[in-house]
Amino acid sequence: MLFKFKPMGVIHSPFKRKEDIDQKKFAYLDGFDLIHGELEIFKEYEAGLKDTEGFSHLIVIFAFHQSREYKLHTKPFLDDTLRGVFSTRSPNRPNPLGMTVVKILERKGNVVKVAGVDMIEGTPILDIKPYTPRDQKSPIKLGWLEDKIKGSG
Amino acid sequence: MLFKFKPMGVIHSPFKRKEDIDQKKFAYLDGFDLIHGELEIFKEYEAGLKDTEGFSHLIVIFAFHQSREYKLHTKPFLDDTLRGVFSTRSPNRPNPLGMTVVKILERKGNVVKVAGVDMIEGTPILDIKPYTPRDQKSPIKLGWLEDKIKGSG
Repeated sequence: MLFKFKPMGVIHSPFKRKEDIDQKKFAYLDGFDLIHGELEIFKEYEAGLKDTEGFSHLIVIFAFHQSREYKLHTKPFLDDTLRGVFSTRSPNRPNPLGMTVVKILERKGNVVKVAGVDMIEGTPILDIKPYTPRDQKSPIKLGWLEDKIKGSG
Repeated sequence: MLFKFKPMGVIHSPFKRKEDIDQKKFAYLDGFDLIHGELEIFKEYEAGLKDTEGFSHLIVIFAFHQSREYKLHTKPFLDDTLRGVFSTRSPNRPNPLGMTVVKILERKGNVVKVAGVDMIEGTPILDIKPYTPRDQKSPIKLGWLEDKIKGSG
């Protein structure tokens, strides 16, 4: 059984290539807060954006389109130990799906300006959802990541 | 361009059919907190679950496999007005992808017992990721949903 998904838009990002993303930013809670970009939704889906502007944050589900071969045990860049891939946010995973919560700045028609972009230019958007209170979990435990996350920087 | 994803596991839920989910639960912050279920990860991917047990919560990305035809404007069950589909969590959307954050109770090999299940029995799992501080957004604005969410019940 295979599920097939068609891009509904594309992400515009200041990161033109994977190498442009400073991986150290992932160690900071606010590492990407000031990174602005755009969700360009294809015209045929624009009507579905109605009412999104009332929300402060959107969940973006996207394809890691430059994902390479995955390994079930992988070394995250924030750690020196091999970790199970499902305990990491690595782009190289069995189904190369990404999820990032972004902040809405402004919508103009089919383009949503957002902050918190950690994807690269041209990333295909598969879905957009409103971020709701059920997505806010607290307190949380972070396993191997616990002492590697810093407040701000 | 099409992206193809293969299920990596299946969700076991007390909700055997769509009709078993009491939609009113979605109006409460803790509506599904006590709903337990299992993420059964296929044996070939089990090694990737290493280290997930250190985390308190997992992001589950799944296929709404019983999704029907979508409309770009849709009436959410919590509202009487037509809303843009991307401002709702409706299963009927251009790419029928779902995302739920669940709490880890226990892992036994390839089976993760979790709480917070709002999916139906047999839902195909496409990806699992650790829930991290960058997924905790606050404060948030909720648009049309603002006065429809209740604390607990």
